[in-house]
Amino acid sequence: GFIGRHLCDRLLARGDEVVALDNLSNGRLENIAHNVGNPAFRFVEADLLELDSLRQFFAAESFRTVFHMAANSDLRQSAEATDLDLRLNVMATHHVLECARRTEVREIVFPSSSTVYGRREGLLSEDTGPLQPVSLYGAGKLAAEAFVSAFAHMFDTLRAWIFRFPNVVGSRMTHGCIYDFINRLRRDPTHLRILGDGRQEKPYVLAEEIVSAMRVGLDRAQEKVNCINVGVDSATSVDRIADIVIEEMGLEDVRREYTGGESGWRGDVPRFQYDLTRIHALGWGAQHSSDEAIRLAARGQLAFIENVLEPSGKERP
Amino acid sequence: GFIGRHLCDRLLARGDEVVALDNLSNGRLENIAHNVGNPAFRFVEADLLELDSLRQFFAAESFRTVFHMAANSDLRQSAEATDLDLRLNVMATHHVLECARRTEVREIVFPSSSTVYGRREGLLSEDTGPLQPVSLYGAGKLAAEAFVSAFAHMFDTLRAWIFRFPNVVGSRMTHGCIYDFINRLRRDPTHLRILGDGRQEKPYVLAEEIVSAMRVGLDRAQEKVNCINVGVDSATSVDRIADIVIEEMGLEDVRREYTGGESGWRGDVPRFQYDLTRIHALGWGAQHSSDEAIRLAARGQLAFIENVLEPSGKERP
Repeated sequence: GFIGRHLCDRLLARGDEVVALDNLSNGRLENIAHNVGNPAFRFVEADLLELDSLRQFFAAESFRTVFHMAANSDLRQSAEATDLDLRLNVMATHHVLECARRTEVREIVFPSSSTVYGRREGLLSEDTGPLQPVSLYGAGKLAAEAFVSAFAHMFDTLRAWIFRFPNVVGSRMTHGCIYDFINRLRRDPTHLRILGDGRQEKPYVLAEEIVSAMRVGLDRAQEKVNCINVGVDSATSVDRIADIVIEEMGLEDVRREYTGGESGWRGDVPRFQYDLTRIHALGWGAQHSSDEAIRLAARGQLAFIENVLEPSGKERP
Repeated sequence: GFIGRHLCDRLLARGDEVVALDNLSNGRLENIAHNVGNPAFRFVEADLLELDSLRQFFAAESFRTVFHMAANSDLRQSAEATDLDLRLNVMATHHVLECARRTEVREIVFPSSSTVYGRREGLLSEDTGPLQPVSLYGAGKLAAEAFVSAFAHMFDTLRAWIFRFPNVVGSRMTHGCIYDFINRLRRDPTHLRILGDGRQEKPYVLAEEIVSAMRVGLDRAQEKVNCINVGVDSATSVDRIADIVIEEMGLEDVRREYTGGESGWRGDVPRFQYDLTRIHALGWGAQHSSDEAIRLAARGQLAFIENVLEPSGKERP
């Protein structure tokens, strides 16, 4: 997947042996093509929902650390298909946990999300309660967090790191605001449809930075279960994202059409900001502001489309 | 089930029409036998895990309010069968929510638990975070809470009441400390095995009181999603429970054997106390102290065994 690609690269760079597992429903093989041939890297196509084969796989491998990055990552889908997050985010996580505890995995890393907090005023700290998600995606993440916590407490060998990510961006994205804006503007460079009123404002962080935050958290936070917000102190509005994407595409006079309302879609949390005291105390801070992350991600995504996806042709709609 | 019995009685007493659904895996038909023949009451044997038939059932009935009281209620089982809480507490709840939103149910009541808080010092208020359950049971309850919250926020017609119960006791219990002690002392009235060091201390509330708290919460708390601790300001140690059960059984000179350790079993939270500001502000307080609840429950359970289960014979071991 999108973050997994950056994670693999970093783990291999520091000398780890890596086995990447993906069902390729959303992930792309080209994300790991550059690692094929590296003796420290293997790819396995498998589905986390098939518990029996997952068990055999874990038993054969004896993993020390599991980064469980697989998930439904598109919040908007789940209003229609209400079982998506239950299956892909909760049951899949439960399966990974069950295999991990049976094979005495030592460390499990779970990427959670700001969506577990629901809609709340003020800075969101890891101690904020109650947690009342307003999307099924957020519910799936909170449900998975709950099982991560319980498995780590129930079984001696296992410890857990739960990272609550903000919006994560970068080249090779498969969804999200930048991805949508680029695709829409490539189809029609004169006109941009924007979900909501454009004033939704959230922190954005590059995938590479997220990976470095996970590494720092894993090395330095040493509780049985560690829950850590990862983010940046700045934020970017959806209108500002449109500005940046339009600039990076070299377009002018783009007419904007707003679908209206403060949220982009049902279940969207239009604005939030993290209390980042914990991750800062561990010695990590984002290198790029939210606006910079948007610009670098847009630039990277445009280069990716031009150089890799379609050096001579058309993006799929 | 055990709480459902009291709930049905109360709803029927105030003139509601009630349909009770149970798969009879843990619930007993005798709990509702006294309501058979009441034209306002119907019983349906069905399994919440069978989504298709559940959908048809909901579509045919047009419920206004759903009390989703079905659950795995035995915390100790789930250390062995780690999928129990995923299936019986999370998937079953998801199915109920999916049927509820499709048939425009207005109100869903979900019985949650103190176990969602994990092991924490100090008074547990509804705003306490982070929520890091230490048992799979607690994880299943928190996961189900998360989906209750998300469905209620995602779908206009649905509102939700999440009640976080303490230990609930009463006659016709199917598990728990009083139930176990009575059964053990009936097998051997000279000797009592006690899990842990006996100093675990928690608040206990009678099922009838829990039902009245739900009614008050449902009538008076009017948010889209309402999360409410239900409990009592006092608490009872496991040793004190043994005292009370022994007294109520008229026994003397019972030798106690402790398995040791501060927890009764892996995943047990040995002591907690709620902040009850919210439910008190709604005008509800428990009528009985925790010790009184234990005594009334023990007395009721003994009468139930003597009069109903085995008027002339033996309790199953």
